[in-house]
Amino acid sequence: MKITIGQFILQQLRTLNIEHIYGVPGDYNLSLLEMIEHDDSVQFVGNCNELNASYAADGYARLNGAGALITTYGVGDLAALSGIAGAYAESSPVICLAGTPPLHAMKDHALLHHSLADGNFDNVMNCFKQFTVAQALITPENAAREIPRVIAAAWTEKKPVYLQLPSDICEVQIDIAGPVAAPQLPASDPHNLQLAAKALLQRLRSAKHPLMLVDQMVDRYQLQQLTIAVAQRFGIALTNMPTAKCIIPETTAGWMGGYSGNLSRPELFELMAKSDCVLSFGVRLVDSTTGYFSHQIPAAAQVDIQPYSLKLDNTAYPAVATADLLQALLDADDRPHAAPMATLPNPHAQLAAPSDSPLDQAYFWQRMSRFIREDDVLVVENGTSGAAVGGMRMPDGVKVVNQPIWGSIGYTLPALLGTLMAAPQRRHMLFIGDGSFQLTAQEVSTLLRYEQKPIIFLINNDGYTIERYILGENSSYNDIGPWDYAKLPAVLNTQARPFCAAVATSQQLELALEHTSRQETLAFIEVKLPMMDTPPVMKEFCNRCNSFNFGLTNPRRSA
Amino acid sequence: MKITIGQFILQQLRTLNIEHIYGVPGDYNLSLLEMIEHDDSVQFVGNCNELNASYAADGYARLNGAGALITTYGVGDLAALSGIAGAYAESSPVICLAGTPPLHAMKDHALLHHSLADGNFDNVMNCFKQFTVAQALITPENAAREIPRVIAAAWTEKKPVYLQLPSDICEVQIDIAGPVAAPQLPASDPHNLQLAAKALLQRLRSAKHPLMLVDQMVDRYQLQQLTIAVAQRFGIALTNMPTAKCIIPETTAGWMGGYSGNLSRPELFELMAKSDCVLSFGVRLVDSTTGYFSHQIPAAAQVDIQPYSLKLDNTAYPAVATADLLQALLDADDRPHAAPMATLPNPHAQLAAPSDSPLDQAYFWQRMSRFIREDDVLVVENGTSGAAVGGMRMPDGVKVVNQPIWGSIGYTLPALLGTLMAAPQRRHMLFIGDGSFQLTAQEVSTLLRYEQKPIIFLINNDGYTIERYILGENSSYNDIGPWDYAKLPAVLNTQARPFCAAVATSQQLELALEHTSRQETLAFIEVKLPMMDTPPVMKEFCNRCNSFNFGLTNPRRSA
Repeated sequence: MKITIGQFILQQLRTLNIEHIYGVPGDYNLSLLEMIEHDDSVQFVGNCNELNASYAADGYARLNGAGALITTYGVGDLAALSGIAGAYAESSPVICLAGTPPLHAMKDHALLHHSLADGNFDNVMNCFKQFTVAQALITPENAAREIPRVIAAAWTEKKPVYLQLPSDICEVQIDIAGPVAAPQLPASDPHNLQLAAKALLQRLRSAKHPLMLVDQMVDRYQLQQLTIAVAQRFGIALTNMPTAKCIIPETTAGWMGGYSGNLSRPELFELMAKSDCVLSFGVRLVDSTTGYFSHQIPAAAQVDIQPYSLKLDNTAYPAVATADLLQALLDADDRPHAAPMATLPNPHAQLAAPSDSPLDQAYFWQRMSRFIREDDVLVVENGTSGAAVGGMRMPDGVKVVNQPIWGSIGYTLPALLGTLMAAPQRRHMLFIGDGSFQLTAQEVSTLLRYEQKPIIFLINNDGYTIERYILGENSSYNDIGPWDYAKLPAVLNTQARPFCAAVATSQQLELALEHTSRQETLAFIEVKLPMMDTPPVMKEFCNRCNSFNFGLTNPRRSA
Repeated sequence: MKITIGQFILQQLRTLNIEHIYGVPGDYNLSLLEMIEHDDSVQFVGNCNELNASYAADGYARLNGAGALITTYGVGDLAALSGIAGAYAESSPVICLAGTPPLHAMKDHALLHHSLADGNFDNVMNCFKQFTVAQALITPENAAREIPRVIAAAWTEKKPVYLQLPSDICEVQIDIAGPVAAPQLPASDPHNLQLAAKALLQRLRSAKHPLMLVDQMVDRYQLQQLTIAVAQRFGIALTNMPTAKCIIPETTAGWMGGYSGNLSRPELFELMAKSDCVLSFGVRLVDSTTGYFSHQIPAAAQVDIQPYSLKLDNTAYPAVATADLLQALLDADDRPHAAPMATLPNPHAQLAAPSDSPLDQAYFWQRMSRFIREDDVLVVENGTSGAAVGGMRMPDGVKVVNQPIWGSIGYTLPALLGTLMAAPQRRHMLFIGDGSFQLTAQEVSTLLRYEQKPIIFLINNDGYTIERYILGENSSYNDIGPWDYAKLPAVLNTQARPFCAAVATSQQLELALEHTSRQETLAFIEVKLPMMDTPPVMKEFCNRCNSFNFGLTNPRRSA
């Protein structure tokens, strides 16, 4: 079968349902963009810059399963690298396609713009090797083999990959073995699977206080239903890391709240500390998700479930896919099902009537917890937004998109562009702080240009509030420039008619929320909140961060 | 002598006249920022994001000789990497200080936010090794040795360097040998210097058509005066690469215009092709600076002068500093001085009277060539601005700051922040296209916050015009969102009172220019120009780029 290299790439992407590719044009990627221009099955979405494009592709991947961006060599892909690293940290399969100088020039070590002009074309690749699980410089000789290999790695490992496409070979025809097929997850080894299921079943039957601890992996490999089915069948209580917020619907019977070390609900913290069997699904215990390593999980209790392996009582079972393992548990167990577990009661806080007194964080988030509804997509920036949303009990079907590990401020606004295009039927809301917003603010123009209609809440608390709690409350480096945020969207598109408002009281907030439900446009609500107002858990977290990062001799403590 | 590690770094920077450090706060760099907060000799300038900070530090270095930025680990330094690579390509000594996780956590391979949460803290360093000439992870054990080593490398090689400062050791006291001293350029080997000077003198005396070809190096090592003195003494005509625009004042006797292969003035192209002795000062012959390798420089004529070496007739003379070599030529030659050379006549184009007909590129740039005056700093984006300014005869003392090799669009706006702070007494003007502006637009807010007063010309030609000439004139990927540019500055600072105007006719332009001379504020002038209007040389350049990048089977040619 004959196919051009460019078409081969596009068709591979289509097997992953990728219909939108983000990026910025540059002289080394125009041939591929021209091909997309004439292709009805995939659309190029032009971002304002490449970092933003990488965030958008990541946001798209969170709801679509995979995403892609196109950059130009050097200036473009390097600018996107931090976003690619973020996709790695958060297990988001993003395919970065870099248009490179023509192959003849790279082979000649020609001195070119967008390089160091020293004939070295390895340095950019060397960077991407650090933050992707597969990479290739495509040539006519290797294209048939390398393109599927690299794209399959993204799909299998749920991590970003990197393809360099020389500008002069996009239209080159190659031979491929057969029709373009979707990459497949590897199958289990039947013998190992049987052994693993048996061992795990035995472990579960002997457990007095079993607990499931769910992390991102359950979402990325779409294991929600199987995981919950096993929990119900065996009567296993469930919790999740902060990185896995809402992956288990929070009305699920047996769900105990999120786990974050001793910042969790005390009952849950105790349960974990006493558990004799913790089924850990791809769990990573990270400073920012454990209240600075305050977790207490008995080592002997831990059962380490990874996407393609199980480890239990110091015995490893490689080549065991989790879906197969969970299914084997369901199939094997012929005993009576466990009794139904209880659902965590919902806290019923009283919400004060709207008034003209200034808004604060407590009121705003209580109001939001009523505003958020089933199946909403919430894109949530680290900081006060992340802390507040993390502590909120969510309706079923809510999807939370954030970057709890990589934690790059500014991520969420461009990511929102991706989530919107991946799930256009859902309602998408962004919660972002003013400091974070300034990093990537121009992407509001892209949202408007492509007629996207999210609700954006910009939390304006006058600078880097979280940093102020860590160090330098009144130091100038934690200040930022005073923007007229609510006027920005209209300036960033002369044709769109977004709904914009700045609110400082609960009455104003109410009015703005009403507007958003009546209007079919992008809504941008600047919420003015006091500078040092933050959810209490965030203050405790920042204290721990200060101790961990700066020790006892740091400026705040010695003051 | 006792000194804290943080203070040692700051004092080293002060020896390079660095008084402004750009960057973004993050929880791993707050201890260093807190130290700067209480230090009267250096100011932290908060950018909107790290890429912008790297551009600002680069712009600062272009006028100050060196610049610095502070980032936080992972999310921050990786986001700045493309700007650091740009500083490498353009030989701009930028010191990137990254606050990293505390040393105890890195040694423990702890799972931390702002990393891949896998205990690997080498990957970011591995990236920076690709694009800096020296790097170190500072520890209490190595600080006294590594900090001066790395900073001296930046100064000596005029390239960026990278220092990782763990968050918990900023206040740690170390012993240093003596007072903090400025790094010194290496001295010449006396014997080699003598041999080199003799050989070069002989070569010059036998030359019939000698020519000096100047590149960035002459600016970076401050060799302008010596170079011109040698040219005058020996009657050597001068030219410069586009990368070295205005490094030789363009009224200098014997200056022949800029050299860019067969896109140069025909007289100069001929002169170069026939020269029997071309003194090349750190010359790099790059696609974008040679009209795609259209230069003709006789190989046998070339004398390769590098900062610390000379190569002549296939003989190399290492350890010869160029300043010493040029001085030796001036000292050694006792023959009569060469006759004065002629100054290149100034083209006297007629400028039409201002009218209400639409502006075009030709008029706008002719008007600018009258508006620009001695000692102006021009920050010039690649694209139509770069092509137009490159072809303009400049008054003496004009400094041009651009990125002709790395060519990252969006570079100039943040770079302007750096040039302004490095040379506050001069008039600074920015010429930037709309497509480029959108990448880094938020940095207008930083200019306003720090009360900077440049004149910004935004050339609005409705998208990526240069790309349109390369490929896809009417393709949607070359479009961008329609912004109301002239309204943006006021939105990006609620307190400043910038002068903003959008002009579409020469009369409106005239009015706006008058305003800028009367007002003591930042001036922002959006210049509306036709989409496909571009300096003629740019069209030819784009044609060559199309052929080089895409070959003969590319979509445009096959259409």
